[in-house]
Amino acid sequence: MKRVIFHDLITLDEAKEILVSRARPLGVEEVPLEEAYGRVLAEDVYSPVDVPPFDRSTVDGYAVVSADLAGASEISPVKLTLKGRVEAGGFPDFELSRGEAAEVATGAPIPRGADAVVMVEYTSEREGAVVVYRSVYPGENVVPAGSDFSAGELILRKCTRLTQREIGVLAAAGVRRPRVYRRPKVAIISTGNELEEPGVPLARGKLYDVNTYSLAAAVVESGGAPIIVGRARDDLEEYREILGKALAAADLVLISGGTSAGMADLTYRVLGDMGRVLFHGIKVRPGKPTIAAEVDGKIVVGLPGYPPSALMIFHSVVRPALLSMQCMRQTPPAVYRARLSMRTEGAKGRRSLYPVVLINKGGYVAYPLNAESGLISVLARADGYIVIPEDVEFMEEGEEVEVYLFERYTPASLYFIGSNDIFLDRILAKFDVKAIYVGSMGGILAVKRGEADVAGTHMLDPETGEYNSPVIRRLGVKGAVLVRGFAREQGLVVARGNPKGIRGFEDLLRSDVVMVNRPRGTGTRTLLDMKLEEIAKGRGISVEELAKNIRGYTHEVRTHTAVAAAVAQGRADVGLAIRYAAEIYGLDFIPVGWEIYDLLIREEALERAGPIIEELKRASEMPPGYKRLPETGEVVAKF
Amino acid sequence: MKRVIFHDLITLDEAKEILVSRARPLGVEEVPLEEAYGRVLAEDVYSPVDVPPFDRSTVDGYAVVSADLAGASEISPVKLTLKGRVEAGGFPDFELSRGEAAEVATGAPIPRGADAVVMVEYTSEREGAVVVYRSVYPGENVVPAGSDFSAGELILRKCTRLTQREIGVLAAAGVRRPRVYRRPKVAIISTGNELEEPGVPLARGKLYDVNTYSLAAAVVESGGAPIIVGRARDDLEEYREILGKALAAADLVLISGGTSAGMADLTYRVLGDMGRVLFHGIKVRPGKPTIAAEVDGKIVVGLPGYPPSALMIFHSVVRPALLSMQCMRQTPPAVYRARLSMRTEGAKGRRSLYPVVLINKGGYVAYPLNAESGLISVLARADGYIVIPEDVEFMEEGEEVEVYLFERYTPASLYFIGSNDIFLDRILAKFDVKAIYVGSMGGILAVKRGEADVAGTHMLDPETGEYNSPVIRRLGVKGAVLVRGFAREQGLVVARGNPKGIRGFEDLLRSDVVMVNRPRGTGTRTLLDMKLEEIAKGRGISVEELAKNIRGYTHEVRTHTAVAAAVAQGRADVGLAIRYAAEIYGLDFIPVGWEIYDLLIREEALERAGPIIEELKRASEMPPGYKRLPETGEVVAKF
Repeated sequence: MKRVIFHDLITLDEAKEILVSRARPLGVEEVPLEEAYGRVLAEDVYSPVDVPPFDRSTVDGYAVVSADLAGASEISPVKLTLKGRVEAGGFPDFELSRGEAAEVATGAPIPRGADAVVMVEYTSEREGAVVVYRSVYPGENVVPAGSDFSAGELILRKCTRLTQREIGVLAAAGVRRPRVYRRPKVAIISTGNELEEPGVPLARGKLYDVNTYSLAAAVVESGGAPIIVGRARDDLEEYREILGKALAAADLVLISGGTSAGMADLTYRVLGDMGRVLFHGIKVRPGKPTIAAEVDGKIVVGLPGYPPSALMIFHSVVRPALLSMQCMRQTPPAVYRARLSMRTEGAKGRRSLYPVVLINKGGYVAYPLNAESGLISVLARADGYIVIPEDVEFMEEGEEVEVYLFERYTPASLYFIGSNDIFLDRILAKFDVKAIYVGSMGGILAVKRGEADVAGTHMLDPETGEYNSPVIRRLGVKGAVLVRGFAREQGLVVARGNPKGIRGFEDLLRSDVVMVNRPRGTGTRTLLDMKLEEIAKGRGISVEELAKNIRGYTHEVRTHTAVAAAVAQGRADVGLAIRYAAEIYGLDFIPVGWEIYDLLIREEALERAGPIIEELKRASEMPPGYKRLPETGEVVAKF
Repeated sequence: MKRVIFHDLITLDEAKEILVSRARPLGVEEVPLEEAYGRVLAEDVYSPVDVPPFDRSTVDGYAVVSADLAGASEISPVKLTLKGRVEAGGFPDFELSRGEAAEVATGAPIPRGADAVVMVEYTSEREGAVVVYRSVYPGENVVPAGSDFSAGELILRKCTRLTQREIGVLAAAGVRRPRVYRRPKVAIISTGNELEEPGVPLARGKLYDVNTYSLAAAVVESGGAPIIVGRARDDLEEYREILGKALAAADLVLISGGTSAGMADLTYRVLGDMGRVLFHGIKVRPGKPTIAAEVDGKIVVGLPGYPPSALMIFHSVVRPALLSMQCMRQTPPAVYRARLSMRTEGAKGRRSLYPVVLINKGGYVAYPLNAESGLISVLARADGYIVIPEDVEFMEEGEEVEVYLFERYTPASLYFIGSNDIFLDRILAKFDVKAIYVGSMGGILAVKRGEADVAGTHMLDPETGEYNSPVIRRLGVKGAVLVRGFAREQGLVVARGNPKGIRGFEDLLRSDVVMVNRPRGTGTRTLLDMKLEEIAKGRGISVEELAKNIRGYTHEVRTHTAVAAAVAQGRADVGLAIRYAAEIYGLDFIPVGWEIYDLLIREEALERAGPIIEELKRASEMPPGYKRLPETGEVVAKF
């Protein structure tokens, strides 16, 4: 089996610098103003004209010589000779002298000699004369020519990103087609024999290519134009051909994946053959196997395969280079300061990147996630990432960190943290709620710390046999109420027709039966262990002893439907889950009992959560295996 | 002269609500994933597959039954039978029983019966057997099937905006063509006889159409697709035709301008004839004349004519409706909390909007600008706007305000506030500097308050005849240094050939001469008033008396080049300005003397300003009428 050897690992900053130092702005092109949004100016722009181009009235009224109106009032009005009229878009072919006035519309030029405009409200016009009832100061209601900017004045600098405002400035100066930098074309290749294009039916052992599409979106966010080249397999000739195609079409090439040593090795060899390797290996976790090369004067970067890792390394190393290619400044979409929600470890001599969920609870709290699992749900939940320096062993809970956002951040009006339930999720989907699924226990603790407004929980207390309240009380939650949710039917999920003839928990001990389990801290796992406890007691042994004889007891999956999926695909024969999961997969279901799923709500969030509770009470259609309870929607306990 | 009568003024919130309540999501379309960035989901998305679809190894190594390796170590390794190999992309056609192992690559499925993977580092393989030197816990190095999300699980909610992360999630679930809402098509019409298309030579009395382009950019930022329809003049038939065209092509129509009463009245009449007016007039300053109508079931909004006003009303009223049409949440790009830089007045019963410049000085400071002047430079400088409620008479300097940003905000590494100089501007353009031009006095005060890092100043002290230092000391600046800049030649700018035969300041008193002046607080104005003081003394009268006899003395323009522009266009015969401005316009120049332009730098910013000072010292080519001084780039005073 091959192993990748890294020779000279460099730091994340060095890696960034190597790419940025090679990134030059590409060609220049003219674009019409209406297509210039977000583009970057390729030259300083000097105004070719004065703006405004003439002394302009800001009101409907009469242009006057202000000195004529000294002392004018309702009691002693001043009469001026009407010399002419000027409409917006017209131009006066006369001058004003003392004692004269000209009617001017808003936006119209005032005649030479005039130095102010008196508003029409303070005048009356009759028989070729204007009577004015108040004085004006010099310059009143007039915007002088060139007072915005003058011909020859620098109005916008090279490398300015054109937004609403800059586009308005260019229009005012009459610049119809600004010269901007060409957008970098970025070719994207995914590697790995296991990757399949989304939309195509998935063969066994295959999974869908994620990086191609998330990276393409990241390229767009960075101002580049992505070119999707395709997927490369572990085949030298095919790989070279695809890379050649990418280099011909693009200014920069991104390769992602190659999670297996064979594929990573192939990337290293092909890049070394076709060009010059710039670096191979970064002192960072995750992202160590990142590689960069220069081929035909173009940069090629090989990113890690796990989607959250690929995205963090893209943002840390590639995005700065992409911005440099457009002469843009190297800032992330935004940096937020936040408190760490838990003690988080560094990576001993390597810089450590953690994807985080950002929650606004007055101040911001950052929940670190583990990127190394390669879970897509990490990608789905992460608002950005934090960086722990190489010389830091760990950062404490509550320490301030900088969060580098992937995109602009939109806080939600209510934060839900806790156990995932399919029925509740459909209710939450109707509201402005940010939901994070971390199991019942994680939810209760998040409410305790004040980070969640609402937790979803179905924790059975083994001693009392009661759901939720005893556990919440034992965890010391204060300032929260428990609102009764609904009941879900739990049972053993088995293949259709129950080929193994499973009847109850005793059958889990059979040597021909493989089970699939849920993790500790979930309500379902607690229920299972209670049932096993009874069996163990009957046999006079501990649960631990008993569990050793259960095949698959240590095989844990995250959700009810994952239990059903494992049974449906033959990876397990049985698992404990809710009836609804069995229904989705068309499996048989042996009822065990009803569990209670409740909402733990912080007192100050009760009003905001009101509409959700109302919806819960109202919901008429419940999925199979769900039932309403007499107290559904009522407060059943206070802490 | 017509005046617009407003009948029932409504509040800004009511106006927004009227539009939002009529905004419905438009049709639904499928887009390929690589074009889905920024689009909004039109339906809940449930995963059609388990993700990952199989129990997946996260490392290169051997799939094992963890119980077999209990107690395995370097000293007592465990030998397992090699049952087979699984590559990434392959699928095992065998099961593992106790005592067996299978080689698996990163990303490959593990065989049924295995519950962990031991990394290749802790193994050696020989003769069909694997020797393992450490134990593994159940689930180690395995991501179970469905642990990300399971078939049937809600993965993304309707109305979710698709960013890098959501696109990754869709790809993982195999969703190739998500169903998204159609982007709203927004037709844009500018009105006013004075408007000309940018790029076309400007006739006298005309100015370039700004709103069409800045609004088009604002529409893009809001997720809409702008359609530029054109400019409408004060002509009923033409107006109706253009509006008909816009309604046929778009989902929403924006009309801007109609600054003159005639044009505004025409808009009101046409909208009333063609459809139903929803509101006419909002209790807001600026933006009172805003009008909305429903024509053929589509919304038409008439925005104010001044570009900063049009943009603020767009953001307050139209953008929320545009977002609703895409089922997006109604948040501005961002809201920043900032301190007000100066006392700012409300609008007595009307809500008041002020464009602001946002500066990051530890906390944020918001500089209010006056939108009512219609100046484009206000648009250029404003990062966003603040809202003063109708019942607030004024807000104090230092009070906290919310700043609604037009676009995402990028702080600069150095803030320059002060007098505008063409030569310095070219130097600043090379650095990451945000420059705001408010004159010498405004710059000195901004450094004093700590809001600017650097001020550019050329203030002559009339008593000592010395530049800058005496004025800065008198203003009580502390903790700053004065760095010598350069000298600029000041003089009287007159038409080419000097047709009026002007020789000096005495000529300003002639009745056939019209001057153009600079505002109080500028160095140039101070120089002029010193020269006039001498003349006044000689005649035994005050400067004020003398100034009354100078035509155009009260006509003030903002920049040196604006002085030259006024002379070049015949609006004035003479003005005091720097030689360089005369050169740009090909005018004659009567030298008066050299003034000194210095940089006032806060001590803590001196290091950051270092490269600018170096560049100033180095700059070899100086424009005409500029000269270096012996102390250029040196600290000449400390405060």
